[in-house]
Order: sequence, then structure tokens, then C-alpha cells
Amino acid sequence: MTDTHLEPTTWAPSTDPAPGVDPALVAACTELLGADAVVSDPVLMREFRDPYSHASWTQHEPGLVVCPTTVEQVQELVRLAGRFDTPTWTISQGRNNGYGGPAPRVPGSMVISLRGMNRILELDEELAYAVVEPGVRFFDLYEEVQRRGLKLWPSIPDLGWGSIIGNAMDHGVGFTPLGDHPARSCGMEVVLADGSLVRTGMGAMPDNPTWALRKHGFGPHHEGMLMQSNLGIVTKMGCWLVPQPEYYVSAEVTVPRDEDISTLIDTVRPLLLDGTIQNSPIAYNVTLIAGAFSGVPRSHWYTGDGAVDDAAIEKMKAETGAGAWLMRFALFGYEDVVSEQLARCTEAFARIEGSRLTHRGFRGDEVVHQLTALERPRPADGPEGAVDRLRQQSDTTQAGIPSLDLLDNLSWDDHGVGGHLDYSPVTELDGARVLEQTRWLREECAGEGLDYAASLMIFPRACINIVSLWFNTADEAGTRQAYEFTGTLIERGAERGFGAYRTHLEHMDRVAATYDWNDSALARFNTRIKDALDPQGILSPGRSGIWGSRRAPQG
Amino acid sequence: MTDTHLEPTTWAPSTDPAPGVDPALVAACTELLGADAVVSDPVLMREFRDPYSHASWTQHEPGLVVCPTTVEQVQELVRLAGRFDTPTWTISQGRNNGYGGPAPRVPGSMVISLRGMNRILELDEELAYAVVEPGVRFFDLYEEVQRRGLKLWPSIPDLGWGSIIGNAMDHGVGFTPLGDHPARSCGMEVVLADGSLVRTGMGAMPDNPTWALRKHGFGPHHEGMLMQSNLGIVTKMGCWLVPQPEYYVSAEVTVPRDEDISTLIDTVRPLLLDGTIQNSPIAYNVTLIAGAFSGVPRSHWYTGDGAVDDAAIEKMKAETGAGAWLMRFALFGYEDVVSEQLARCTEAFARIEGSRLTHRGFRGDEVVHQLTALERPRPADGPEGAVDRLRQQSDTTQAGIPSLDLLDNLSWDDHGVGGHLDYSPVTELDGARVLEQTRWLREECAGEGLDYAASLMIFPRACINIVSLWFNTADEAGTRQAYEFTGTLIERGAERGFGAYRTHLEHMDRVAATYDWNDSALARFNTRIKDALDPQGILSPGRSGIWGSRRAPQG
Repeated sequence: MTDTHLEPTTWAPSTDPAPGVDPALVAACTELLGADAVVSDPVLMREFRDPYSHASWTQHEPGLVVCPTTVEQVQELVRLAGRFDTPTWTISQGRNNGYGGPAPRVPGSMVISLRGMNRILELDEELAYAVVEPGVRFFDLYEEVQRRGLKLWPSIPDLGWGSIIGNAMDHGVGFTPLGDHPARSCGMEVVLADGSLVRTGMGAMPDNPTWALRKHGFGPHHEGMLMQSNLGIVTKMGCWLVPQPEYYVSAEVTVPRDEDISTLIDTVRPLLLDGTIQNSPIAYNVTLIAGAFSGVPRSHWYTGDGAVDDAAIEKMKAETGAGAWLMRFALFGYEDVVSEQLARCTEAFARIEGSRLTHRGFRGDEVVHQLTALERPRPADGPEGAVDRLRQQSDTTQAGIPSLDLLDNLSWDDHGVGGHLDYSPVTELDGARVLEQTRWLREECAGEGLDYAASLMIFPRACINIVSLWFNTADEAGTRQAYEFTGTLIERGAERGFGAYRTHLEHMDRVAATYDWNDSALARFNTRIKDALDPQGILSPGRSGIWGSRRAPQG
Repeated sequence: MTDTHLEPTTWAPSTDPAPGVDPALVAACTELLGADAVVSDPVLMREFRDPYSHASWTQHEPGLVVCPTTVEQVQELVRLAGRFDTPTWTISQGRNNGYGGPAPRVPGSMVISLRGMNRILELDEELAYAVVEPGVRFFDLYEEVQRRGLKLWPSIPDLGWGSIIGNAMDHGVGFTPLGDHPARSCGMEVVLADGSLVRTGMGAMPDNPTWALRKHGFGPHHEGMLMQSNLGIVTKMGCWLVPQPEYYVSAEVTVPRDEDISTLIDTVRPLLLDGTIQNSPIAYNVTLIAGAFSGVPRSHWYTGDGAVDDAAIEKMKAETGAGAWLMRFALFGYEDVVSEQLARCTEAFARIEGSRLTHRGFRGDEVVHQLTALERPRPADGPEGAVDRLRQQSDTTQAGIPSLDLLDNLSWDDHGVGGHLDYSPVTELDGARVLEQTRWLREECAGEGLDYAASLMIFPRACINIVSLWFNTADEAGTRQAYEFTGTLIERGAERGFGAYRTHLEHMDRVAATYDWNDSALARFNTRIKDALDPQGILSPGRSGIWGSRRAPQG
């Protein structure tokens, strides 16, 4: 058993050329897939690197990119990788840019891009489910639902270009009542490291019609262990959709003071636990809103040294009207029921001094028409339109209408390409504890001269605090600072009982090392299973800090 | 790799004495636990046999029963079992009588009874969760909640004597809004076959306060693969509770004709998918109601040959007033919201010709007092009280108040000890398909001269049809018929696309063999993981048809 407990080390990016793959492997892949589906040119492969890393860094550059379109091709590619002893890295769409995008953990890996496996295999209105391939994007499923005129809403994250499967596999979150994406997934087909094919749950019975309808089959249920891991390549997955509700309310509540996050959390918790609010609210702090929705660069708010100061934050509050925190949430159901639920929410939030609740109601069957109409009112330019822009984005996202609206706002810095890296620790849904966490994070960021932009994804019993570190990818020092500082936060957060739920390629070992109870029992458990299913370490070595014995880094 | 696809064989019970265990193992266990915690006397061990098997059968008799009270003792027992190469079988309470109770799959196993590990380690009102040991029963958690005066409802199955952990581990179902018991479990501590200890999810971070609050940790999530399996012994588990609602409605709808089950299913499906009904309804056919709730033996209804005939079924309908099917369900929430939801349900079910909806409303804070009061009205004796008895049992169970009411009615046969065996196939929640399944089952049962007593557990997209085969355990031929016929149904059901969700010890191999897609890929996958984690085959060999290579039956 290797020692999987990695000590923190000072981080340094690599600038060595990524190792190439055996030309015979390229030839074999070309024979299997055709030349168009094999990318080995270093320039073309740059599309598959970590999109927010500095241009000179090479530690996550692929050695080869292959684009299968069938399950059989995936099986054969895995067998070829074994024969050539070449590590692979699987991506569905590879759009998870804040965490490394399409890039492999190990430089020189053969990236298996599943973008071309993009069929919607089943889509059923009555039972509200779909079965999809990994290349199917949130956009694709939404468009197919519209094309067929089905009364279904897919659950989607804030950006619609990602893969439904890829997002679920990384514990993604959406904002309809089926927003726990791992939980709304049902049934998988998986290629294992030896090229064999398994179906999970009810799908293990030939032609069983409940594969995508009942999660627990007979015996152990494997879907959880296949997520955020590297034990297999998922080639099909069932996915539940929300029936179009009769009525839909998109709402937000603002609170004036930073410390009001505590009361806000304690007020929303019972409304989530009792099912009044059925989706996952997000609470944004005003720095996030100024950065992502105001349409003006950071210099509009602050030009001094270090992190934005209190005066700048007061200016953000004044010009955007977002308060210190703005929490969005939604209600779904029969109009009379929703109206009672809204009354409950209004009454509860009104007890927070200085809070303001705004909301918009839509008939379910008019949502798509109303929210995608070209004549939709355009928010005012600049900060005074920030909350309106946020509202429009919330209205569509919480109704399952995908967009790329949030992509537009990554140029916090005035110059260059905006990048971001996220540190995403979990905390219990307790106001005092969330306040403690946000204060600690603001202080840590300020210590680095960085702004604290926060999005709290809120569930009935826990909360994920997504800290977005923004930087200019053309500035190597600033980019490096963000990468290093994320690592520091991971370690310091763990000391305070905050575990990260998801992380960038660069930090996977470090996050895994914080889950080290009982001499890293879980990491050793993961290694045993990895070794049993993939002894050669062919599938995505290093994902979630799991390497298997053979490729374990020497530490 | 052994061939895990078992061909159907004619079944024969064993009457050979179960093999004993090495006296040195008994001595070592006694030294570890004390004499009171080690049961090796054959007479005392009979408490741990399959409770509904014939008295002469021995194929599921233990060789030794040990009762640890600490995690360290469980670890040491597993190490001892390895040293003596003795298979173990773990039970929490072992009350799952229709599926074999506390009995081991392999005769002569060392049964590890966790009944004595019965501490409630955490119980939190604000975040609505508990952390329990495996010996904690539904009764225990309920009583502790009452003792502390907490406004929480535990989710419970129909009988309250079972273990919270044991029930979740076998994919158990409850009837509050948190009725998917595997899904409302969060965080586990597990003893592995080598005696080592692992914590899953957020619990892998030392002292992390979100262990029982967030299901997905970092990296693969293992709780699903630890259920209905034999990869570890769970010694602690988090468990979510329902906050006491302001208002609670317990309701039932009856439909007059057998074929109305189709419309009933198609009517309830949208109400489940849109969250109007938040719990799992159960639809009982009138034979089940006559058998389990009417308080009279079968001879009251029918004394002819074979299964109860149409005239007897009409008599059941007339005397009980239950219709052909009675479906119970519940609503939970603010009184005004529940009242709107009840109106929706009433309107929807009224569209079924001849249907009748009855309901009772309770203020959440008065439920326990009202439903456990000694002066609660006593239903009429005999069949005319059947629906009232069912209502009282539904009222308490759906509100999380445990009872043993359903234990009273297992003497369908006039003589001897009533036993039952359940065949529990899953189907998609589609009326036509459920009707097809119920008709097929009625016909199959009639072909054996057996009555068709059905309880359909209904979820938003699928349904589990629990077929209870009742017999007199003193009658060996009748008992044997039920055991054999269950096996036949498993195989014939699989041909029609119906997979069992749970089964009796005796049928685990047979059910596993029906999940045989792609040359039994899932069974081979399970064997690989079992071999990696438990190469010696020490932990519960044969559970869910998983043996590992070393103990695989020769077939």
C-alpha cells in the first residue's frame, strides 16, 4: 500500500513539453476512428488544455485527443491504451473551466473526448426521463424537448454548454426541484479498464424498462462510486426531468448587512427542510454580483492596492441595489399552492430587518415563450442593470432554459482574458457557522490582496460556498497566485472542518489528502478498488486524487 | 472468473445438521465478548434461524451467534473469523422475516448480531438528522425524539421493531417524505473484512461536522455499493428526519374494479411527479386487506379448493368496503398548502368512476397525542373494521409513529404459525403495465392454488409489487410450495421484464442470476470488487448472490 497522504508542498507549474504518445498508438487510433477523429497536432490540441492556466504552462497538456462516436470504439480505445500502456483522460464536453476544463491530470495522456457521442436515446414525457450519451449538452436536451413540444423541464446548471453526464459525474448542481444532479441520474452503462461493458441497477436485467426509472437495482448500487472517480467511462445514463409546473415563481431576497447572511441562512433552512422551497437557492455576495453581472470592470469600483475595501463594497451595494447578499430561489407547482408558499416565504424573510423580496410569476406553459422572446426587456447598462441581469439569468436557469449569460462577465480585470479558479468548501447549514466561514474567507482573500466573491449553493442541511478567484490569464504571476492560494485555502479550510466538494485538476491530490481520517482509510479503500478494476492505471489516473498503486506519485 | 450465471434448479431444503464452528473460535469470542454475548447452544441459536421455514429445515442455521457492543469488538470478530476461516453473517436486528429474518445464507456461519450496539450518537432538531448505531430500532429513535420533545418525525416502515441501518441497507421504504431509506441515509462508518475501519463521504475528513449532512463527499461515493452487499459491516450511519409539519393529512382512495388499478396508477403518477403527494403511496388489493386487516381467517371467505374465487373476492369487497384496491397516501405541510393539495387530489381521483376518497387531518403538534391515546376509538371486530384498522395503521406509520400492528394478522390459515414469503418485482409506473403485472401474478398464483395478496409501493416513476405468499409454517408441503413458487415467479417475472428489488436468502442467487445482461457483467463486476476487499470471503458470503471467487458455489 502506498502512502496516499500527501504533504503540502510549494507548487510550481511545469513548462516542459508534454510527453508525446507512441506514433504506433496514433496510427492505431486513426485506423479505428478515421483521421478526422484523432488530434495529435500540438497546436490543435491546445483547445484541450486547462483554459485558465498561463499559456506557458504545460502540466495539463494532452499527448493525443481521440473522438469516438460509438461504445465499441470507446471499448477498443481503452484496450489500445492498455496495450500501449498510455494513461487516458475522459471528457464529455470538458466545459468545467473553473476546474480545468478538458485538460488531463497527467500531461501526455490520451484524452478521450465523448463530444461526438451525442444521441438522446430515450425521452419520455409521461415518466419524465431521458437516456442520453455523454456528448449530450444541456442545450441539446432542452432543444429536443422544445422540438417535440413536451411539457418537461430539464434541470441545468448556470451554463448550458456542459454535458449532462459530465456534470452529474462531477457532483454538479442545478436549480429545478431535481437539482441534485447525481441524485437525479438513474442507470448507467460503463466501459471498464479492460474494455468490457457493464450496466448498473435495473439495467443489468436485459431490456428491463425500469433501468432509468428505479435507482436501486438488486444488490450493491454502483453509480455513486462511478462519480468523481476513474473506475469506468460512462457511455449512457438515465436522467430525470421535471414535469412542467402549472406555475413558477422566480424570486430573490436581499439583506443589507454582511452579517445578515447568518439570519438569512437560519430563515431559509426550515423553508427548505419542509419543502416550501424545492430548489437550491444561491446566495451571492455583492462583490460576486458586481463582478459577474454589473458589466463594468473592477476599476469602476476600486483602484487602490489589495482587495476591494469597505468603501468600494458600499459603492457596489449603492449602485447595484443588491444589498450585502442577494439570495435567489424558486417555487414550482399549482398556482394556488405556489401562492401560499410565496406568502410563507414573504412572511419569513420579512422578519430580517432591511430585507427586500422581489419575485416574478409565470404560467408554466408560457415560461419558454416569455423568457426566450427577443423583445424581452433589456436591463440598463452598467451597475444599475446588474440585479435585472441576474434576475433574467435566474428566471431562465431555474426554469431549465440553458444559456451562456454568465460567460460574458469574466473580465473583472480590465486587461486580457478573464479566468477564475474556484475553492468550494462545504459547511453545515447553520447561520453562525456560515457567517464564520464567509468571514474567514474574506480575511484570507484580503491577506492575499484578492477580492472575496461568493456564491453559496444552499441545500436543506448543508451549503457549498463557491469562492471564485478571478485573474487575468495573461498575467503569469496573478494566475500563479490564484493556483497557489487555492491550495492554501484547501488546507486551511480543512483545519476548520470545511471540506471541498469539487476541485481543479491541480488540487485533486491536495483535497484528497484532507480526507485523511484513520490514516487515510478512504484513500486506501479507493486504491484497493482502483487496483482491482484498473490494475494498469489506464483510466484517468489522478482524478480525485486516486492513482492506483502502479501510477501513485512518489511523495 | 467463475460462472455466476446460475441455471434454475429444482429446490430442496436441507435437513442435515448445520456445521458447527471450531471450539477454539467459540473460546476466542468468549474471551473477547464475555460468555453472555456468545450463543453456541443449538437450542438458543434457533432464535436466529429463518423464522418462516419449516422446523425441520437447517439450510440457514447459524453455527455461532456473537453479540458485540463496540466497534473494536466488531473489528476483532472479523479478524478472528479470518483466522479461523469461518464465514460470518451480519444482522442489525434481523427482523426482516419475510426475507429470512436473522438467518445466515450459509449454514454454520458465525452470525454477528449488532442488536447490542444501540446508541443514538447524535440527534439534532435544527438540521433534522441523527447518527445511529445498527442496533437502534425505529422504536428507539421515535422514543428518544419524544423523550426530548423534538419536533421531528423519523421515517419508518410498517413494522417498528427493525433496525434503522439494517432496513436502509436492504433498500427499505418508509412513508414520510423521506421514505426512500437508502436516499435519506447519509454517512457511514464501516468495518472491512481485514478488520480495518473506513468512514465514507464527508466523514473521511477528521471531525467534519457535515458527515451526516452532505451525501456526496470528495471523490467516489460508496454508500450505494455498501447496501444489499457484503463488502463491509456498517457500525454508524447518519439518518435524516422530517421536521414536524404544521398539518398532516392521511388519506385513502378506493376503486371498485380490479382493472381500475390502471387508471389509479395513471392518476397518481402526475401527483407524485409534481410533488403534490410527497410520500410513497401503497395500493393494497382486497385480498391483502382481508388477510392482513380483517381479523378473520381465510375460511371466513372461502372453503373451496385452490385460490379464493371471484365470489369470495366480491364478499371481501362487500364486507370490508375496501373496493378492489385501496391506496393510502399522505400530505404534509402548512395547513393552507395541504388543503390546496388535498383539493387537487380529490379532484383528480374523483375522475375515476366509483372511486371514494376518505381522509383525516391532524395538526402536526397533536399527531402523537391523538394517535397514541389509549382512548383512541377501537375499530369494529371482523371484516367491517378492516378499513378502520388499516386507517389507524396508516395514520401512525405515515406520521413516523412505529407499531407492530401488522404483525397481528399472519394467521390466514386457521391453524399453526402464519408465515409469509414475498416476491417483489419492480415495474415502470404505467397503468397498463401495472395492470398487466397484477393480472399475470393473479394467474400464476391461481395456477398454484394460492391467493394473490398485493401491496404496491408507489414511487414517482416506478412501482414495487409486493406479492405476499401466506402459508402455515407447520405444514411442510405448503411451506415448501411457497419457497419453490417464489423461485418460479422470479424466473418467469424476469422473462417479462420484472426484476425483484429484494429477496429471501433462499432466492438471492436466483434473483442475481436474472440480472445477467452481457454475460452477467454486473455479477462479474461484483465478484471483482468482493475479491479485492474480502479475498477470503469472510463477510456474509452469498448475500445478494455475491460470493467472491473463493466461496463461489459450484454450478
